Amino acid sequence: MGQKNEVNPIWACRGFPAFPVVLAAMGDGNGDGEKNIITVVLCHMFSFNPPVLGIGVSPSRHSYALLDKSDDFSINVPGKELVEEVLFCGQKSGKDINKFEECGFTYTKGKKIKSPVLPECMVNLECKKVNKIDAGDHTWFLGEVVHAEMENGIDRTRALMYWSGEFRVIGDIIRRR
Amino acid sequence: MGQKNEVNPIWACRGFPAFPVVLAAMGDGNGDGEKNIITVVLCHMFSFNPPVLGIGVSPSRHSYALLDKSDDFSINVPGKELVEEVLFCGQKSGKDINKFEECGFTYTKGKKIKSPVLPECMVNLECKKVNKIDAGDHTWFLGEVVHAEMENGIDRTRALMYWSGEFRVIGDIIRRR
Repeated sequence: MGQKNEVNPIWACRGFPAFPVVLAAMGDGNGDGEKNIITVVLCHMFSFNPPVLGIGVSPSRHSYALLDKSDDFSINVPGKELVEEVLFCGQKSGKDINKFEECGFTYTKGKKIKSPVLPECMVNLECKKVNKIDAGDHTWFLGEVVHAEMENGIDRTRALMYWSGEFRVIGDIIRRR
Repeated sequence: MGQKNEVNPIWACRGFPAFPVVLAAMGDGNGDGEKNIITVVLCHMFSFNPPVLGIGVSPSRHSYALLDKSDDFSINVPGKELVEEVLFCGQKSGKDINKFEECGFTYTKGKKIKSPVLPECMVNLECKKVNKIDAGDHTWFLGEVVHAEMENGIDRTRALMYWSGEFRVIGDIIRRR
């Protein structure tokens, strides 16, 4: 084991390798009103059965107000070929532009939710909001997965990951359970 | 984009590539009482400032009762050389064995918490409990990081990841932000 140094707790996040980065899409709760897409790296499974996913979004973001109003949202897992779109949707605000048009995403309604899904992504998870948690500088919205679609024979090594300024894919399997 | 199929929402988790896997360590709240280590893949940063981390643990686990009693816990990021210990701490119960002894982890008190930390890991994050969230089959404990130690010149490509039965490391950088 290497020599350790104390670091400022604010830098605690730097100690993690990478997390899956996803595109969350949501409407304003009406189905036909405003829609937006936001890049989210604060995303995890919260429960397997029932299947519950959570996303953490800063209240300063344009998507926050939409998520707050909406009963649902979608989580879409992008492949590495979408890295420029993922970067774009993380850096630009939906207040100023239409990210569906700018990124060339096919606008597609969810099957069981009013929010859109992104068919260009490898996985589309339709979530109904079940909880909202204020966790500090990010608020987490939890949603139960009510409909899920995945690419046939999904190749997880194509999925995009992100942390600390670096987009990556996952590497070698070193052990199976 | 590949052809998609509807899948059972319960399988939604299979659509993610991998998440960092960590070792959480906790006591029974007294500092000198029972201690345990549990392997956790449900772990994420919840907030950057203040720095808040969360871990999801099933109420059926021995560690759950300890976490529930304790005011704090540690999150420790293992390198890939600890893959067997990580597997062991995920499969065995602290009810039956002493995981510190079995795994050869040096028992080490936290600097700012009563729970132990694991010096053999690349990163040690000492957390004070700030929230508890029932999310379905897992309960999430959120903790503010009050003390952090990291290996000098930390190499994130050594950190262990896990999902769907596969231990991995992260792969290539495909884009910097």
